[in-house]
Amino acid sequence: MTDRFKGLLVPMLTPFTAAGKPDAERAMRFGKDLLSAGANGLALFGTTSEGQSLAPQERMDLLDTLIAGGISAEKLMVGTGSCALPDAVEMTRHAAERKCGGVLMLPPFFYKAISDEGIFRFFSEVIHQVDSSDLRIYLYHIPPVAQVGFSVELVGKLVDSFPEQVVGLKNSSGDHNYSIALRERVPEFDVFCGSEDFLLETMRIGGVGCISATGNANPNEISRLYRNVDTPEAESLQQSVSAIRAVFQKRPVIPALKAIVSQAYEDPQWTKARPPLVELSNAETESLVAELESHNYRPDERLR
Amino acid sequence: MTDRFKGLLVPMLTPFTAAGKPDAERAMRFGKDLLSAGANGLALFGTTSEGQSLAPQERMDLLDTLIAGGISAEKLMVGTGSCALPDAVEMTRHAAERKCGGVLMLPPFFYKAISDEGIFRFFSEVIHQVDSSDLRIYLYHIPPVAQVGFSVELVGKLVDSFPEQVVGLKNSSGDHNYSIALRERVPEFDVFCGSEDFLLETMRIGGVGCISATGNANPNEISRLYRNVDTPEAESLQQSVSAIRAVFQKRPVIPALKAIVSQAYEDPQWTKARPPLVELSNAETESLVAELESHNYRPDERLR
Repeated sequence: MTDRFKGLLVPMLTPFTAAGKPDAERAMRFGKDLLSAGANGLALFGTTSEGQSLAPQERMDLLDTLIAGGISAEKLMVGTGSCALPDAVEMTRHAAERKCGGVLMLPPFFYKAISDEGIFRFFSEVIHQVDSSDLRIYLYHIPPVAQVGFSVELVGKLVDSFPEQVVGLKNSSGDHNYSIALRERVPEFDVFCGSEDFLLETMRIGGVGCISATGNANPNEISRLYRNVDTPEAESLQQSVSAIRAVFQKRPVIPALKAIVSQAYEDPQWTKARPPLVELSNAETESLVAELESHNYRPDERLR
Repeated sequence: MTDRFKGLLVPMLTPFTAAGKPDAERAMRFGKDLLSAGANGLALFGTTSEGQSLAPQERMDLLDTLIAGGISAEKLMVGTGSCALPDAVEMTRHAAERKCGGVLMLPPFFYKAISDEGIFRFFSEVIHQVDSSDLRIYLYHIPPVAQVGFSVELVGKLVDSFPEQVVGLKNSSGDHNYSIALRERVPEFDVFCGSEDFLLETMRIGGVGCISATGNANPNEISRLYRNVDTPEAESLQQSVSAIRAVFQKRPVIPALKAIVSQAYEDPQWTKARPPLVELSNAETESLVAELESHNYRPDERLR
């Protein structure tokens, strides 16, 4: 097994062709550019990637294309979560067989107010059915979107039961205290924050990095913060990346990020999102670019 | 095209084999029994059917098996909703090709706070891609679970744009005023309540019936209420079915219904649910049966 993930993982946007299919060519170029810009890895098929808007076969095909095109599987944390256990198993097995660095799994999120026992059984089934020594699961905790999350007790039970397989978590709850509680309950467990706003705080409690949507637009600066968390520069770098994030967070984040990548590549096709997401209007894009420029952010300087 | 659905549609529970696969044989028997007991149709793969816990291929295979086994396609309203547009298109096309009476479609429900425009685009894509004169869509409005719903304005726009395809809605919001508002905005549109608690009220405003989880356990009495809405018996029948529903609603409804079907058939395998749902304990089942008996409800009398 390779080393475990750390640092900045970018939850890579998924480009679409004019026909509305995942665009492997644009994805390949973008993935390589993000890694060149300082990303330590790529998280595929999470929220920012419109992962739940992709059919399982689309996800597996795009993963295979990226690996075949030269992106190292060990740098890929693959979103394999699904409400449907068989789909979760199939995608997780596929990623493990390709020796991806890990999978990032949502809990099943259709039913609400489900029990910890029900989520435990779901993950237990995935682990038993996939049955691979190459499987490393990162739990994807994002209650604001999924509405279903992982209690600290449940994480503890999963790690106690499957210490080789359940190795980390992405905390996209916006609650840093949750990360603190996890560090106390499962000290060997790798905690990523889901926003660079919490990167310094997360590293200071023994976390390992961040997996943040805005990594798509600001990979070099967030990476610089990660590499300088123990230096006098850290606080000012933290303020700088958080200021850029705040600009995106005022908008529909995924379409806004796609608009900026489109600007960086001078490629209108990059704006395209799959329903139910809707692209920014021209006016919204102009306003976004203007606000970013007021923070000395220029798309073409940050992504290349 | 056949007549449009009306009356009691039962959102049929999905039985599972010991290996955790959808159990076609048990499903076939149960579907036929429900139709014999008075159901006017069966709604497959909604919330009660654990539809989102099934892979698309599992849903399509089970549908084919039921039709091959002799259940008329025109009596089937098939849940084809998915967060992923290609999956929704594939399952909807499959159901239309088999000339099912209709499809029951959730909005894409992973992203929250999405725009009406985004949901409109999703359904517009499904309708254009499936491109079938046999397609009849029923919108599945269940905000307590999906968290994403259909505004009255959005329903109006969908019906105005696709009057041949978007023909009805299941209102599982628990808000009867929503049904009233729909009847005013789109008078030719077929409104089903999602609970028999609202059956009388729904019929009195020109609705067409109900699609209710507890139809799995109480089909004959709910059907009787439907056939007697204009008689002096109506109010007492309404009270009677609502009393039974209340017993189930105090519990995790789907496992509770499976426990009762298991009792009716004297078949322990029927209790099985797929994660993240968890079966009732023996004690919970005993308590449920006892409370039902206090309402003169005996499982074996209601289902056969």
